[in-house]
Amino acid sequence: MSPRPRVCALVGKLSDPRVAESASALVAGLESHRIEILVAEDFGLVAPCTRLTRVEERELVERAELVIAIGGDGTLLYAARLVAERGTPLLGINRGRLGFLTDVLPQDMLASVEAALEGRCEVDRRPLLCACVHYADGTRLESFALNDVVLQKWGTGRMIDFETWIDGRYVNTHGGDGLIVATATGSTAYALSCGGPIVEPHLDVLVLAPICPHTLSDRPIIVSGRSTIDVRLIERPDTRGQVTCDGIVLAEFVAGDRLEVRPAPQHITLLHPSGHDYFRLLRSKLHWGRGGTTPAR
Amino acid sequence: MSPRPRVCALVGKLSDPRVAESASALVAGLESHRIEILVAEDFGLVAPCTRLTRVEERELVERAELVIAIGGDGTLLYAARLVAERGTPLLGINRGRLGFLTDVLPQDMLASVEAALEGRCEVDRRPLLCACVHYADGTRLESFALNDVVLQKWGTGRMIDFETWIDGRYVNTHGGDGLIVATATGSTAYALSCGGPIVEPHLDVLVLAPICPHTLSDRPIIVSGRSTIDVRLIERPDTRGQVTCDGIVLAEFVAGDRLEVRPAPQHITLLHPSGHDYFRLLRSKLHWGRGGTTPAR
Amino acid sequence: MSPRPRVCALVGKLSDPRVAESASALVAGLESHRIEILVAEDFGLVAPCTRLTRVEERELVERAELVIAIGGDGTLLYAARLVAERGTPLLGINRGRLGFLTDVLPQDMLASVEAALEGRCEVDRRPLLCACVHYADGTRLESFALNDVVLQKWGTGRMIDFETWIDGRYVNTHGGDGLIVATATGSTAYALSCGGPIVEPHLDVLVLAPICPHTLSDRPIIVSGRSTIDVRLIERPDTRGQVTCDGIVLAEFVAGDRLEVRPAPQHITLLHPSGHDYFRLLRSKLHWGRGGTTPAR
Amino acid sequence: MSPRPRVCALVGKLSDPRVAESASALVAGLESHRIEILVAEDFGLVAPCTRLTRVEERELVERAELVIAIGGDGTLLYAARLVAERGTPLLGINRGRLGFLTDVLPQDMLASVEAALEGRCEVDRRPLLCACVHYADGTRLESFALNDVVLQKWGTGRMIDFETWIDGRYVNTHGGDGLIVATATGSTAYALSCGGPIVEPHLDVLVLAPICPHTLSDRPIIVSGRSTIDVRLIERPDTRGQVTCDGIVLAEFVAGDRLEVRPAPQHITLLHPSGHDYFRLLRSKLHWGRGGTTPAR
Repeated sequence: MSPRPRVCALVGKLSDPRVAESASALVAGLESHRIEILVAEDFGLVAPCTRLTRVEERELVERAELVIAIGGDGTLLYAARLVAERGTPLLGINRGRLGFLTDVLPQDMLASVEAALEGRCEVDRRPLLCACVHYADGTRLESFALNDVVLQKWGTGRMIDFETWIDGRYVNTHGGDGLIVATATGSTAYALSCGGPIVEPHLDVLVLAPICPHTLSDRPIIVSGRSTIDVRLIERPDTRGQVTCDGIVLAEFVAGDRLEVRPAPQHITLLHPSGHDYFRLLRSKLHWGRGGTTPAR
Repeated sequence: MSPRPRVCALVGKLSDPRVAESASALVAGLESHRIEILVAEDFGLVAPCTRLTRVEERELVERAELVIAIGGDGTLLYAARLVAERGTPLLGINRGRLGFLTDVLPQDMLASVEAALEGRCEVDRRPLLCACVHYADGTRLESFALNDVVLQKWGTGRMIDFETWIDGRYVNTHGGDGLIVATATGSTAYALSCGGPIVEPHLDVLVLAPICPHTLSDRPIIVSGRSTIDVRLIERPDTRGQVTCDGIVLAEFVAGDRLEVRPAPQHITLLHPSGHDYFRLLRSKLHWGRGGTTPAR
Repeated sequence: MSPRPRVCALVGKLSDPRVAESASALVAGLESHRIEILVAEDFGLVAPCTRLTRVEERELVERAELVIAIGGDGTLLYAARLVAERGTPLLGINRGRLGFLTDVLPQDMLASVEAALEGRCEVDRRPLLCACVHYADGTRLESFALNDVVLQKWGTGRMIDFETWIDGRYVNTHGGDGLIVATATGSTAYALSCGGPIVEPHLDVLVLAPICPHTLSDRPIIVSGRSTIDVRLIERPDTRGQVTCDGIVLAEFVAGDRLEVRPAPQHITLLHPSGHDYFRLLRSKLHWGRGGTTPAR
Repeated sequence: MSPRPRVCALVGKLSDPRVAESASALVAGLESHRIEILVAEDFGLVAPCTRLTRVEERELVERAELVIAIGGDGTLLYAARLVAERGTPLLGINRGRLGFLTDVLPQDMLASVEAALEGRCEVDRRPLLCACVHYADGTRLESFALNDVVLQKWGTGRMIDFETWIDGRYVNTHGGDGLIVATATGSTAYALSCGGPIVEPHLDVLVLAPICPHTLSDRPIIVSGRSTIDVRLIERPDTRGQVTCDGIVLAEFVAGDRLEVRPAPQHITLLHPSGHDYFRLLRSKLHWGRGGTTPAR
């Protein structure tokens, strides 16, 4: 991010009035810094601005030197996959309360954007996953994921059985609702709900967290972030799954298909206001601390 | 079960060779006791037998005085819902290893069936649930469940938000993959995989177990088995659920619909060989005990 | 609680300034209602009051017609065991935030006490446990517990092995840090930290929750509140335990001793302001609800 | 381990007849290979052998070029701490079933020892922790740990409150029974009982697992194995803890003391028969796989 960005892209759902309000303030602020602003064609109405251009997604990705995501963590995950190939830095503005990825509060937005433009933010490179579904017929579908790649049962009340391999070594045959392969970044997302641990974000490890496993000792496993994970469904009547990347459906999945999750060569670059403290964020998000304790004892 | 049964129904999937083998032996055994045997029209081939009649499901339910389910717990759950209205006693033969509900091993099958015919089995009455989906348009769908009624997300990688009430009192607004309402019988099934406790089978309580809850303190709750539980989805983009009873899909479910789970007036009658010991079954199924312990410590 | 109480006992640690402040206001309030006030001899200084008498614990227990506990849930648990034999009603005033048992906030104290004096409170009878340690030499020690009876390892870094029986039926041989036998009331205390479920407070069931069990399938069990639970340590080098009731040490415990937990014939009577809502209390204590949700997903 | 070892130490509790039997066979085997055998002075009786010498522990540690531990994982942990300073390779023989660290079965003992002598074993270097208790008076106590360093409550039925720091950054104030700092090696020991994940043994990370935490969102954290962890008790009445290393008590611990856990400069060298497969070991120890699944669903 050495040279000062001259072209910023804004991403967010303007149907949310809090997002629209922040976007208007942000457009005015960027205009005063003589920054060119790109938004997608369906971005919605903001205050009129001579420096704002509506462009196709492809152009937005190619030209943006900084992406500002306004909304929740879902919005930032969407933006991150969009620019994954190019490594464009991302700044996440939350619309009310802190997110794990959108860690700038509305009241700090303009100061943080200014810091980002002037290169005064902390640069936080996060590993990225590449999910590839290899179909039995030889075709395949690929996608990036910053948080997690998930195989889960689909449209059935019954559990699915599946096998896992790490770097070609057989691990286990699982029964349950599915499997999460999460990065450190994704450890505080779906994997946490499934009994996975919190992982310091800079660690290059993966969490393999079974979803509602049938066998009670089928517990989350931490493996190297350089590993390649393979998953296959076991043939059973009515068994069917789907694969999602950061919560977005990538593919249906049946016995005979193979899901491969491997480290992507690219990283995601997040910007944080200086003084960013991951554990303070955890304490806030997870209601930690003496005052926030829960059961009487 | 006072009078000696004269008409038995057999239930099971004969496509499984172990089930077919047990069924053949059982048909021969029942014939020697001069018992009339009813099977469904699609039951599959068994040894020729003059006392075996293929009948429609309705006739099977009406005439059977004892139902013998051969297979896994899924087969017994199917048979239980079939005869729920009539309270016909059920004997479950497992095809290899013990099940929670099919607790007769193949080698003990003929002796146990004889005990059942002679009224020497332990009679075990289990509470039954009634699930009712009330659609926004006023129509409704109902089903029985012996193990559990489950609302879960359907065809989406995102979580669902839903509200729960117990006897009209608001409990919580949950985010996650869904909710299990389990009987004591069902406490060792799906609910156990979701962090629920084991419940002694004769207790008239329900387990309300959230599935992969977003909030870490959203824990299983034990409530009276006389309670009526209501669940509603919160409107969100792309939010969709389905309701299953004992793993069988009952209905799709969207915002505006209401799921009501209440105690059924009927009970299920299970027969066990005398000397049946629930905790011995638990120790066997859950690998309990000193020899079966797991981590080094 | 039919006749209006004329003698109230106050219980609390006046070394906590917030407790002292509430106690002073309460003494003044009770004096204006012409209530005689009993406190223990070591109660600490409160505002001078002609109706306040310092008495021995025995006299306090015998004469009090209402006990007001000011502090946290620990203070109320202490008071509850004190008056367990007599069934004296208890009102719990919290010194700041809500407790599960001390559910009157300081600002509502005087109104709630007035309601208690006038018989306008909700009367909430809770089952009580009796713990009895039978020593190998034939002697024994007994105590009541409102929340839980706990056997845990003592002064060793190694786990203990112990056997459990329910009503004389063998359940399991456990390895781990110990076992919690909790009432519904105690389900939200220590047992919740050990993976136990939340139990509606009026249900007469027990939670048997293993503490850090060695076997991952050694899960909490819900049994009838009418059960008698027996626990024995397995002989191992350096194995030693202790038994606590509501967090207070009752006895040391070694191989050869037997811990028996059975329902007490008495109940504890809690008073709540009318409109008391258990699920609202849970939502508040456990940070439930959409605003309080935690991980990003 | 380049040169062929000429001096082996045997470690194990000969009071266990299975250990004594293996030790006798092993002494005979080593004698036939003209290996000098060292045992501690209190090692117990084995078959008479001209090459076996009873020595002081210091001499055993200094002269042994290979240590063979016979027994459970506890025996190997003891041996590992003994030779931690010198990095002597260790081979673990289990006395019956597989351990995580003692992964040679009795029937494979002689072949595996021969492989170890001839340098044909897989060499597995494991990170080691150094625990240091800094007392308020300036003195300190130190010990190595291969599995885990644990702070836990001691002799009290009440929980302890404590603060944690990672590399000088404040993490959280916890309430509960204590904290486990485990290596990848120790992830399948005590930490697994406390909800921690399984960690591939070669990963240089730590698991920080709270023991029975009061706050339900106080979950295990994975941090870099190069981190220094500090823990302090919060002053409360009757609060007291103890620190253990691999289950052996190192020190008592009160408010004002500081526990520091940092990576040791040394590593432990384990030897495995070639073809050693960590995931096969996990599947065996944790009853994984289709046949070993547990609840009916």
